[in-house]
Amino acid sequence: MDYGLGYRITRLDPEPAPWRSPLQALPIAVHRQAAGRYPHPPARVQEKSGFIPNVFLTLAYRPDEFRAFFAYHDALMEKDGGLTKAEREMIVVATSSANQCLYCVIAHGAILRIRAKNPLIADQIAVNYRKADITPRQRAMLDFAMKVAIEAHRISEADFAAVTAHGFSHDDIWDIAAIAAFFALSNRMANVTGMRANDEFYLMGRLPK
Amino acid sequence: MDYGLGYRITRLDPEPAPWRSPLQALPIAVHRQAAGRYPHPPARVQEKSGFIPNVFLTLAYRPDEFRAFFAYHDALMEKDGGLTKAEREMIVVATSSANQCLYCVIAHGAILRIRAKNPLIADQIAVNYRKADITPRQRAMLDFAMKVAIEAHRISEADFAAVTAHGFSHDDIWDIAAIAAFFALSNRMANVTGMRANDEFYLMGRLPK
Amino acid sequence: MDYGLGYRITRLDPEPAPWRSPLQALPIAVHRQAAGRYPHPPARVQEKSGFIPNVFLTLAYRPDEFRAFFAYHDALMEKDGGLTKAEREMIVVATSSANQCLYCVIAHGAILRIRAKNPLIADQIAVNYRKADITPRQRAMLDFAMKVAIEAHRISEADFAAVTAHGFSHDDIWDIAAIAAFFALSNRMANVTGMRANDEFYLMGRLPK
Amino acid sequence: MDYGLGYRITRLDPEPAPWRSPLQALPIAVHRQAAGRYPHPPARVQEKSGFIPNVFLTLAYRPDEFRAFFAYHDALMEKDGGLTKAEREMIVVATSSANQCLYCVIAHGAILRIRAKNPLIADQIAVNYRKADITPRQRAMLDFAMKVAIEAHRISEADFAAVTAHGFSHDDIWDIAAIAAFFALSNRMANVTGMRANDEFYLMGRLPK
Amino acid sequence: MDYGLGYRITRLDPEPAPWRSPLQALPIAVHRQAAGRYPHPPARVQEKSGFIPNVFLTLAYRPDEFRAFFAYHDALMEKDGGLTKAEREMIVVATSSANQCLYCVIAHGAILRIRAKNPLIADQIAVNYRKADITPRQRAMLDFAMKVAIEAHRISEADFAAVTAHGFSHDDIWDIAAIAAFFALSNRMANVTGMRANDEFYLMGRLPK
Amino acid sequence: MDYGLGYRITRLDPEPAPWRSPLQALPIAVHRQAAGRYPHPPARVQEKSGFIPNVFLTLAYRPDEFRAFFAYHDALMEKDGGLTKAEREMIVVATSSANQCLYCVIAHGAILRIRAKNPLIADQIAVNYRKADITPRQRAMLDFAMKVAIEAHRISEADFAAVTAHGFSHDDIWDIAAIAAFFALSNRMANVTGMRANDEFYLMGRLPK
Repeated sequence: MDYGLGYRITRLDPEPAPWRSPLQALPIAVHRQAAGRYPHPPARVQEKSGFIPNVFLTLAYRPDEFRAFFAYHDALMEKDGGLTKAEREMIVVATSSANQCLYCVIAHGAILRIRAKNPLIADQIAVNYRKADITPRQRAMLDFAMKVAIEAHRISEADFAAVTAHGFSHDDIWDIAAIAAFFALSNRMANVTGMRANDEFYLMGRLPK
Repeated sequence: MDYGLGYRITRLDPEPAPWRSPLQALPIAVHRQAAGRYPHPPARVQEKSGFIPNVFLTLAYRPDEFRAFFAYHDALMEKDGGLTKAEREMIVVATSSANQCLYCVIAHGAILRIRAKNPLIADQIAVNYRKADITPRQRAMLDFAMKVAIEAHRISEADFAAVTAHGFSHDDIWDIAAIAAFFALSNRMANVTGMRANDEFYLMGRLPK
Repeated sequence: MDYGLGYRITRLDPEPAPWRSPLQALPIAVHRQAAGRYPHPPARVQEKSGFIPNVFLTLAYRPDEFRAFFAYHDALMEKDGGLTKAEREMIVVATSSANQCLYCVIAHGAILRIRAKNPLIADQIAVNYRKADITPRQRAMLDFAMKVAIEAHRISEADFAAVTAHGFSHDDIWDIAAIAAFFALSNRMANVTGMRANDEFYLMGRLPK
Repeated sequence: MDYGLGYRITRLDPEPAPWRSPLQALPIAVHRQAAGRYPHPPARVQEKSGFIPNVFLTLAYRPDEFRAFFAYHDALMEKDGGLTKAEREMIVVATSSANQCLYCVIAHGAILRIRAKNPLIADQIAVNYRKADITPRQRAMLDFAMKVAIEAHRISEADFAAVTAHGFSHDDIWDIAAIAAFFALSNRMANVTGMRANDEFYLMGRLPK
Repeated sequence: MDYGLGYRITRLDPEPAPWRSPLQALPIAVHRQAAGRYPHPPARVQEKSGFIPNVFLTLAYRPDEFRAFFAYHDALMEKDGGLTKAEREMIVVATSSANQCLYCVIAHGAILRIRAKNPLIADQIAVNYRKADITPRQRAMLDFAMKVAIEAHRISEADFAAVTAHGFSHDDIWDIAAIAAFFALSNRMANVTGMRANDEFYLMGRLPK
Repeated sequence: MDYGLGYRITRLDPEPAPWRSPLQALPIAVHRQAAGRYPHPPARVQEKSGFIPNVFLTLAYRPDEFRAFFAYHDALMEKDGGLTKAEREMIVVATSSANQCLYCVIAHGAILRIRAKNPLIADQIAVNYRKADITPRQRAMLDFAMKVAIEAHRISEADFAAVTAHGFSHDDIWDIAAIAAFFALSNRMANVTGMRANDEFYLMGRLPK
């Protein structure tokens, strides 16, 4: 596999036998070609990054769900406001790591590195966000997001107070919660479909432009 | 509050003080009126049931997310196929109960009673689906759905084998997983926004027509 | 099955196959008849409600345990004092739901609706007591009860302070703890014996008299 | 404190400050004297062991609950049958250790040592029953009891099959479950009331007669 | 087995069948003899207590790991300072009980009884250190140690503040953490190798000299 | 900070405020200089990689523990045999990720990439080893290691059978368990001391030589 970086990945073992979700037996391949023809967003993404992220190829199997998924995703992630785009990706990486979602941690880790212009932050947040090089405000944001991801039924007055104390508005809190909630969905679909992260994501944002 | 059943609910206490999510302070009321004007789906729902479920009123605060949410919902819930509509609602009730989501258990419990034409099934599944009056096939379906809801990262070959043994196709399994995943999102939004179940839901489907 | 309400329950499936505890193979039926002859309490209960709750029929298999069980139950539940009878039932419903006990949630949910004269409260407490329409004092009571139910070994000074702050006396706290403890026993027996909730309970207290 | 063994216990610290349950502030002392006058069972116990176990003194505060508690206890523990008395105590020690109940592990550990005529078995079962010197049949018995203690709502066909394979009858299984359930109650009461184990229990059954 | 105490242990069952780790099939016996010849520490220990603790015999199978293990152990346990030797053993007993390590709870329970000159303290800490007869300072020490043992990734400023408030220095905190961490290793090795506690430990420190 | 790669890391925020362990206030700096003078192993490591990993600098504060730690580490990690060096690092990365240890996942992730000559494998194992590109034999090895890391007290015959079926010898199993156990120690020390991963580790092994 050529990264355009002058080297090829060699796998650990001549015959690796990772888990493959039985859902990969669905006629996803056919739909993958269809997905390649979606005017938006894969084409746009492909143009920018040179490859189509597997999330497009996998979810394209169900066009109606595909459209709803990306409409929801873009409504939450493709805007600025109280949260920067980098901060939105922080929420994705932290909660997806708690859910052990390979695709989301690797792919959104790459996007986080790029948006934060920081090659270290994604790995730090994925392993233990409490020890990452983030501000106290971002720490509070991630504490709230993690509670939504793991035990939303216990969210209480005190949790709201903790983020409000850092200046987050109610609209910001909606965003934090909604991103954590949306990736609760996304992580589960990726885990059940056995969605692989494209090899290209692993190195993205680690080297200077 | 008049149920049209000739009696009024009296609350336990003259001044109940339940938790109210701070997000209810958002100008949701204004949007609630807007939601009342959405041609679809609240109007359709209101026409059938005589009231607008609070999920429409709450999520209407964010129109883009609203549209994506219901498009996703309808793509998963408003079809038959390998799973009946009643079985889809079983998945919602079981996983929403695991997530302690008041709105979803009460509202979808009502829908399940109606779709299954069974006044007992929703409460049984909400409390302990392992003891509910369901078929072994439905039990296997719910076992898979619960694993997606709670620990999707551990889904393995054996889990697929267990549902396949009951005749579920890969498309059916996608549905089971996607419904559990979608309500992972929905439950979290309802819990953070403190979404109340409309009083009308509690009795729906419990009495003969 | 005729409820005396003019309609019959139809089950979801022509041949439902729920889990039946192997303990139902014990000669419980014989003892069920014996239970029907117990002067107290089944007869009294039957007279009031028109049916014998299954907890009497199942536990009657062991007369000594039966007598101790109901003596303990009545000592805790059949009195007023710092806690109303409705509040005592709230503790039962909340902790039994945490223990996923079908019999106790359904049967005591019915009793709670009747004692609180509130058709909504039992379902709310069963799903997530933190979101139920209860007073802050009742919330504190249930927080303490849930800690006894789930991790009594961690009960500390701070937990006592939280309930004392709401005016609960030491005698009240004993009651809260003892009810949660007694249903820890009851829930386990119901789960192991596969005790079904009588169909009549599901609708009790939901309609105006 | 004189054990009648020719030595006195010296505590670790001149002013130990262990946790004392606020419930110890109840007028339990008065009732303790009353308990000393109960013809049965404290007197009988005192006669045999030379002291009154604290469980009698503490629970005597509530005479009705006291009588029901010991009636239930004796119905389960004071008989032989499919389970020996030593095996019944094994269930108490294993499940009480899982519930971190100081009184029950220490007091019933002593009784287990005496009934099994084995000075090591109680400590082994308290720390990790999977590594204790017990038979495979006893291991199966404790696996079932622990599941009742910790997650009775998941008890299934397979759990019954595992104990039935070792020759346990349905009546034996009822006993296993009922003992685990009864001590679920007992452990919670002991933890909330801060019931201390009498110093005498620690050494009982460790020395040859 | 003769304890030198004038009595012999009789096991519960003529043919006990406890779990034996398959690792006991390693040629550990040979190495056990070698261990008997190690000038230090088994010889020293044997001289003092009359037997060689099984941890020496088991780990001797791997001489390099053996030497590192005991060098580490002695660096942490064989010194006084901010923590007494008895307090160091308290940490071992509390965290080893949380890890259900039979060898460590029994063997270090014995050492704790001797070092604290208190026959009750080890059992109390093993069952529920929150109810043990220890000082508030020791309680804070154990709270910190337990957090290191169970969820070190959540250790935060507040945890440090709680122990610092009781006068523990940073060096003391390092000791608390390092002992909990070292026995995290030790407990796991004992559990996997199925290391038995020598019978002699059970009674040590329970009787006056 | 210059990586020798022609670019400098810019942090996400002008004034990042990550958590700093209070233990960093110890006079570790002084000992860091001392560590620089240890003939072995820091000097050797520094020569090879151009920097001193922070684990040497932090643990050097306690020379005796330092020596025991690295003697233990080298006895387990610096040999081949039934497990390759890459496989040993897999165990470190998987279990350290379960323990959310930032230093160990980042540093040993780098070593794993180098030893496996595979730039993707470390991130895959850190996020969800069940989905990583490894052989079934390696999957079984990590299942065993994870059980040792998380619940060693439940290790049973069946766990041994599962790894033995893949050809692991008892000596190999000792290695798997001992590595998981050693990093149980290491992860806890890194988390409590707030050990940072050197920035250099993040990119190591991701680019072709």
